[in-house]
Amino acid sequence: MSDETVKYLLPEDRIPKFWYNVAADLPEAPAPVLHPATGKPVGPSDLEPLFPMEVILQEVSTEREIEIPEPVREIYKQWRPSPLFRARRLEKALGTTARIYYKYEGVSPSGSHKPNSAVAQAFYNQQAGVKRLTTETGAGQWGCSLAYAGQIFGLEVDIYMVKVSYDQKPYRRALMETYGARCVPSPSMETASGRAVLEKDPNSRGSLGIAISEAVEMAVQREDTKYALGSVLNHVCLHQTIIGQEAMAQMEMANDEPDVVIGCAGGGSNFAGIAFPYIGRNLREGKKTRLLAVEPAACPTLTRGKFAYDFGDIAHLTPLAKMFTLGADFMPPGLHAGGLRYHGMSPLVSHAMHLGLIEARSYQQLECFEAAVQFARAEGIVPAPESTHAVRAAIDEALKCKAEGTSKAILFNLSGHGHFDMQAYTDFFAGKLEDLQYDEALLKESLDNLPTVAAE
Amino acid sequence: MSDETVKYLLPEDRIPKFWYNVAADLPEAPAPVLHPATGKPVGPSDLEPLFPMEVILQEVSTEREIEIPEPVREIYKQWRPSPLFRARRLEKALGTTARIYYKYEGVSPSGSHKPNSAVAQAFYNQQAGVKRLTTETGAGQWGCSLAYAGQIFGLEVDIYMVKVSYDQKPYRRALMETYGARCVPSPSMETASGRAVLEKDPNSRGSLGIAISEAVEMAVQREDTKYALGSVLNHVCLHQTIIGQEAMAQMEMANDEPDVVIGCAGGGSNFAGIAFPYIGRNLREGKKTRLLAVEPAACPTLTRGKFAYDFGDIAHLTPLAKMFTLGADFMPPGLHAGGLRYHGMSPLVSHAMHLGLIEARSYQQLECFEAAVQFARAEGIVPAPESTHAVRAAIDEALKCKAEGTSKAILFNLSGHGHFDMQAYTDFFAGKLEDLQYDEALLKESLDNLPTVAAE
Repeated sequence: MSDETVKYLLPEDRIPKFWYNVAADLPEAPAPVLHPATGKPVGPSDLEPLFPMEVILQEVSTEREIEIPEPVREIYKQWRPSPLFRARRLEKALGTTARIYYKYEGVSPSGSHKPNSAVAQAFYNQQAGVKRLTTETGAGQWGCSLAYAGQIFGLEVDIYMVKVSYDQKPYRRALMETYGARCVPSPSMETASGRAVLEKDPNSRGSLGIAISEAVEMAVQREDTKYALGSVLNHVCLHQTIIGQEAMAQMEMANDEPDVVIGCAGGGSNFAGIAFPYIGRNLREGKKTRLLAVEPAACPTLTRGKFAYDFGDIAHLTPLAKMFTLGADFMPPGLHAGGLRYHGMSPLVSHAMHLGLIEARSYQQLECFEAAVQFARAEGIVPAPESTHAVRAAIDEALKCKAEGTSKAILFNLSGHGHFDMQAYTDFFAGKLEDLQYDEALLKESLDNLPTVAAE
Repeated sequence: MSDETVKYLLPEDRIPKFWYNVAADLPEAPAPVLHPATGKPVGPSDLEPLFPMEVILQEVSTEREIEIPEPVREIYKQWRPSPLFRARRLEKALGTTARIYYKYEGVSPSGSHKPNSAVAQAFYNQQAGVKRLTTETGAGQWGCSLAYAGQIFGLEVDIYMVKVSYDQKPYRRALMETYGARCVPSPSMETASGRAVLEKDPNSRGSLGIAISEAVEMAVQREDTKYALGSVLNHVCLHQTIIGQEAMAQMEMANDEPDVVIGCAGGGSNFAGIAFPYIGRNLREGKKTRLLAVEPAACPTLTRGKFAYDFGDIAHLTPLAKMFTLGADFMPPGLHAGGLRYHGMSPLVSHAMHLGLIEARSYQQLECFEAAVQFARAEGIVPAPESTHAVRAAIDEALKCKAEGTSKAILFNLSGHGHFDMQAYTDFFAGKLEDLQYDEALLKESLDNLPTVAAE
């Protein structure tokens, strides 16, 4: 006999009306973002070639609550509030005394949490009269989401997709094209940044750092075009906080409290989305909810990187941000969790890490897929390769409870489904999926080459 | 500015407590199913090697309501009640005066309506002490769903997948394996039926008729193994009626009434799911809601087939059912909507067609994908290749309203998403997707070879 399904659903009118800005509650302000030419803090006008003013103001805001525009909430209604499940069948399979909950963001049209920000960014750009957006995408989750959002708001969307993912994930490209976007493998010959990389290495498999350079370059060249980033920046983390706010209300419905909240972390936005509202509550109410960011051992930004000023891209076109980084020249191996292949980490997440407000842990991809298959067989949902990291950590926390005989509540963000990434599962079952090591010498060199910043 | 999102969600306690059995309301009983050896109506005991008794009793029941077991409703809660949307953005894109609604079954774990029956069948088999299920799958939607349901109820699942789909849809196979099932391309060397086909044609691309033969053969050979069918049969149509029952309640929430209800039809189960409750209401209350079944022009069972007794499979292992059929020897071309490549049609759907209670229409695959892309760009959801047929018909009905200046309500069943079928979209954008014609001579020969049945 099967167990009861325990799903917590909020009514539509409980979609948050405000995004939560963790900057308002941090005990210490994050370091300013610096202009690469002057080394001086950037002002809103420096960012104007890239972003519409509403987004720039969100980037630098210290207000605790920022209202979600009604047209954005209207689009959110297509899939939000997203469900929160108690993983009863997984608990049983593990024989754990822990209570495992997961917030499921895979119910969105593109199958991940990314539309939470894509819809907001497309809206603000449309309001500002922008006609075209450029962006980069790693695994393709962000690209698909911006393609979807751009279509809704009548914007053209050009997407530079990291080549290794472009090759590994043809279904993602098909989805972007179905939504009417143009998808270009990066590095490409369309941009000076792309051509420079290809000149050095014609077989480059690309990276998020390169793809960002290409998208930024194309945006600054055209009057009617702006750039949209799918993670890392403050406003992106801001938009994702509806995840944590909803989860908090759903945990109340469950009459339970998470002891630990888990998210995978590449650029940091899905982790921020579920964790920031809990960080704020910890700080305001003196609670001790643990926040755990999980990253791939092959691209271990928080666990092996340096907290320092660095560029967001390979061509050094972006401003300098203080963050955990492996160095903008670091090239991670081609793991299936393409969305976690980024050398840097959200400055806000990095700052929270630096202040000791969150923890971080890394895993190899094989142990992540083992966990994901166990999860899929118990819960019926196949996690995206990125989300497998959160699943692994949640299972390990639950097994720790079992070993200790304790009963804790574990909440994780299942940030997306793996429907477009089934090649990874095929490889896993065929024994072709391998643990990947980054190049230690390259990491050292990349960290040695971090830019020197006067302000530090 | 975007339009309002209009989503009708029922609370969890509105998941129907009964399946609706259209056989209770039909003005004339369907013809009996016949034993292939004797030509006499089959009794429950004849079906015992294949199905558990609870399922057999449902197959022959004439009771209007059959209670859904509580453990099945518990599993349904993972994704049910499924949402019903008003397609406001599509209406706007079409400039139509029609009101278009769609019931979205892609929210299930395997992405289609199929788990509605898979969960029920797995439950009844587990209750009966069965250890292993065999089945066939065309596009893979049914196979994935039975793999999911089998895992929940602790059953082994062996799936014979039509070879053309096995090759076209590797992601489906990966999903079945992720759920722990075994997936075999059909025709295979594992069965006498498969070997016979391969002997005649070593390059056979397979068909549902062949795959059914293989699965049935394996089930009857083993004591602990039974067979599960994903469409066609009465009990499968019965399980799917929760779709139409929910939709009816949701249309009430919308304070609207469909003038026409549309579903794609391969074996008939998703069409039956949305249409049967409306047929019953038409018959009981004298309403005139149109019911429209849509099929591929390359496999036009209802629109070009014959209403006659025929076998369900190529090896003539199944009982004889009176249905619309292209003949069990008919081999449809390898269209992307693999789930619609079946020579026969649900006897209940066929009977309803014969009685003039429903209409049917066929489309070529190119016009279906054109409609699907238009739908995806407006509504954000990418339809499964099968569901594109319902989308095409809904758009055509809406355009007819526009041409006539009428305002009708159109409801269609979006039976699944296309996440695992993106190769079809890739081919469509690359101009490689072609309209497919069946072989007229083969159809004639196949219809000429229909079995002669004394009872007719």
